[in-house]
Amino acid sequence: MGTKFTTHMREILIIGAGKSTGVLVDYLLKKSEKHQLQLVIADKNLQSAQSLAADHPKALPLELDIFNPSQRQQQIEKADLVISMLPARFHIEVARDCISFKKHLVTASYVSPEMEELHQQAVENGLVFMNEIGVDPGVDHMSAMQVIDRIRANGGHMLSFESFTGGLVAPEDDNNLWNYKFTWNPRNVVVAGQGGAAKFIQEGKYKYIPYHRLFRRTEFLDVEGYGRFEALANRNSLKYREVYGLQDILTLYRGTMRRVGFSKAWNIFVQLGMTDDTYHLEGSEDMSYRDFVNSFLPYSPTDSVELKMRHELKIDQDDFMWLKLEELDLFNPNKKIGIRNATPAQMLQKILEDSWTLRPGEKDMIVMYHKFGYELNGENKQIDSTMVCLGDGQLQTAMAKTVGLPVGIAALKILDGKISTPGVQIPISKEVYQPILEELETFGVRFRESETEYLGYNKLSL
Amino acid sequence: MGTKFTTHMREILIIGAGKSTGVLVDYLLKKSEKHQLQLVIADKNLQSAQSLAADHPKALPLELDIFNPSQRQQQIEKADLVISMLPARFHIEVARDCISFKKHLVTASYVSPEMEELHQQAVENGLVFMNEIGVDPGVDHMSAMQVIDRIRANGGHMLSFESFTGGLVAPEDDNNLWNYKFTWNPRNVVVAGQGGAAKFIQEGKYKYIPYHRLFRRTEFLDVEGYGRFEALANRNSLKYREVYGLQDILTLYRGTMRRVGFSKAWNIFVQLGMTDDTYHLEGSEDMSYRDFVNSFLPYSPTDSVELKMRHELKIDQDDFMWLKLEELDLFNPNKKIGIRNATPAQMLQKILEDSWTLRPGEKDMIVMYHKFGYELNGENKQIDSTMVCLGDGQLQTAMAKTVGLPVGIAALKILDGKISTPGVQIPISKEVYQPILEELETFGVRFRESETEYLGYNKLSL
Repeated sequence: MGTKFTTHMREILIIGAGKSTGVLVDYLLKKSEKHQLQLVIADKNLQSAQSLAADHPKALPLELDIFNPSQRQQQIEKADLVISMLPARFHIEVARDCISFKKHLVTASYVSPEMEELHQQAVENGLVFMNEIGVDPGVDHMSAMQVIDRIRANGGHMLSFESFTGGLVAPEDDNNLWNYKFTWNPRNVVVAGQGGAAKFIQEGKYKYIPYHRLFRRTEFLDVEGYGRFEALANRNSLKYREVYGLQDILTLYRGTMRRVGFSKAWNIFVQLGMTDDTYHLEGSEDMSYRDFVNSFLPYSPTDSVELKMRHELKIDQDDFMWLKLEELDLFNPNKKIGIRNATPAQMLQKILEDSWTLRPGEKDMIVMYHKFGYELNGENKQIDSTMVCLGDGQLQTAMAKTVGLPVGIAALKILDGKISTPGVQIPISKEVYQPILEELETFGVRFRESETEYLGYNKLSL
Repeated sequence: MGTKFTTHMREILIIGAGKSTGVLVDYLLKKSEKHQLQLVIADKNLQSAQSLAADHPKALPLELDIFNPSQRQQQIEKADLVISMLPARFHIEVARDCISFKKHLVTASYVSPEMEELHQQAVENGLVFMNEIGVDPGVDHMSAMQVIDRIRANGGHMLSFESFTGGLVAPEDDNNLWNYKFTWNPRNVVVAGQGGAAKFIQEGKYKYIPYHRLFRRTEFLDVEGYGRFEALANRNSLKYREVYGLQDILTLYRGTMRRVGFSKAWNIFVQLGMTDDTYHLEGSEDMSYRDFVNSFLPYSPTDSVELKMRHELKIDQDDFMWLKLEELDLFNPNKKIGIRNATPAQMLQKILEDSWTLRPGEKDMIVMYHKFGYELNGENKQIDSTMVCLGDGQLQTAMAKTVGLPVGIAALKILDGKISTPGVQIPISKEVYQPILEELETFGVRFRESETEYLGYNKLSL
């Protein structure tokens, strides 16, 4: 099981050979010669690891059960840096081992409270524990802090910050009425926004939107060359207020981007209760798509499901939303759900996956939009910054690129000592974001900035 | 601390001198001479107990800390029957002591899983542990089972059962636009319906209504002499399906009654998110009623809270609902909430209590409506059964009567051995409901039955 690399080589242990790992491995292998890297690609499924290693001389695939402590520790001990691409809940054991064996760690996941607790130990051991360095969170942190720091360095004072990200289908494959396909975990899309009211600040006032109104409170965003998008509020826009140093900011809003009209139609599902993931429907397995819809509508011995739904939600005969529902085959009495003891959300996901699954060759797109409002020399100003990243195909998706590349770049910079401030951290310091954003540009992940008139929050809606 | 009653007297220990206990004590004291009763009225607050005992020779007030086991057990040991009027979560220790000392027990609360576990021990000791014998649950069980048993005894087969209860203001004091005042715990009214989708069966189909649609799916009910009401679904209509023996029933629906138009206006609060009890608003204490409303509306530098709200919820200028909101003084910029770290639900409750608190002398009303659909000799039939109970004033409220009387009647029947089937139970057997309903009639708690055409579920809506 041991690896035999020459001693001047640096070994990077990558745990988890999932969706975004391909781009990461590609990036590091291309650098392996010049930077003297050896990769160990570990996964519970050896084939997944082998497929990524692809017989490259600098890549060693490995079957690894992360719940086997001795095996896990053996691998971590001999690595120089560890990248955990595991689901977020599995990072913590890896992180504790990294403290024990004094190894740097990189993950793309949110900092958990348990991870946060390791901060002091990481600092004392001179270890960089870099987290949230994927796309969202990750590229959003870096690109935002770059502009915020520059505004401050020029003597400006931040008034407002709005930040939006969307994972969408690329324009050339955008061919359904929803202008949407699943480009990441469908389940997260179906339950997005649930678990409490969305909270943010507008012009110094706290604002709250309950889940069942979320999809009716959108704003528009135009991205040059890509047309118009809509944005809806994330659950907690205030999460990074202190971290970004925006304690006294008047407007702070983070949101999710979709194509215009998506949210208004999605709201139909929300209103009917189809996105609920907290209970199970009786007899879900044998229900047709039509039965599923009918579960949320009043009983009638004569009226059709269609009429009851139009009436219940006051949808006009000629409303475009209706075509979107028909496109999903929502009223089909013959297609079966086929999932036992399913929640409404699971049943809806099944229906949507029929229509919204990317086909081979279809490409995704990541869009990001920041608005920075600030005051400089008594004048209110605004900078808008946008980024669009298109996928190149099934493996090199935009999502995989914008996660895998910053993780890989960060790992290498840490190994080379160019990112060296120790501790559990996210990429918000110049030492971190500057070199990473620079290198990301060479891969086409580039932000375009424009100065616009300061509009305050949503002033266009006046 | 000991009580000195002559030995042929039977001692009833009443624990908890709360809202409904007054009617209960009254009832039992009036019977005390003839039935040789002595009451011990125990409460953590001696004054509450004294005020109910009112120096009656057969009533002994007592200060009792139910969390003091030896004191509690001492009292239970020397009683012949125990009535717990405590909040539901405190019954279980009393119940366990009743097993130890072999005493009968009566409560008006839902049977908890812990209570249920005592069933076998109660049976073995020949003890009647009667629960859910207030108004809802209680009077609803008894009046429903009486009709259901009669239909079955006549050879009928149940097709549908719908049951509705409302705690409302009496017609003579019904003088606000909502036709509603708080007659019981206001908090329960504000958060009613939350915690999951409402579930029921209509004509053999399971139906689900998410909370945010609940108040838009009402049906009308007419009660002779009292006009029209509306009903909305309870969260779990299927709770008593097996207990009532209705396993194969086609329609089972339980609901809450309000005056027509209440739910449509209440839905405004639901839509805005004002009934949410899961998070706290920043700066709640210093917010005005107007600020509270504005927290749920988009920011605008120019538009009024009123216009934003009308626009957000598409409320016409001349909609009657708007007058209901104004009646609550919802847009007042000067009235302060004055509650620190409050949830939206707590803040809304504060606003509603200004307007909806019963004034001295104002009376409440309990309304109940059952619909029994059944098949007899190949013919579909329906019986409607309604009950209206009016309060007589601040202490003899309809709510206190319909809780206190059945509890008292049941206690006496158990003591007299007329209700004797042992075990943890609810009042659904003829042995229990027959004598209690009969005696309730003498207090004006009377059901009126009428045979109507079998309509199935909500057939009028066709």
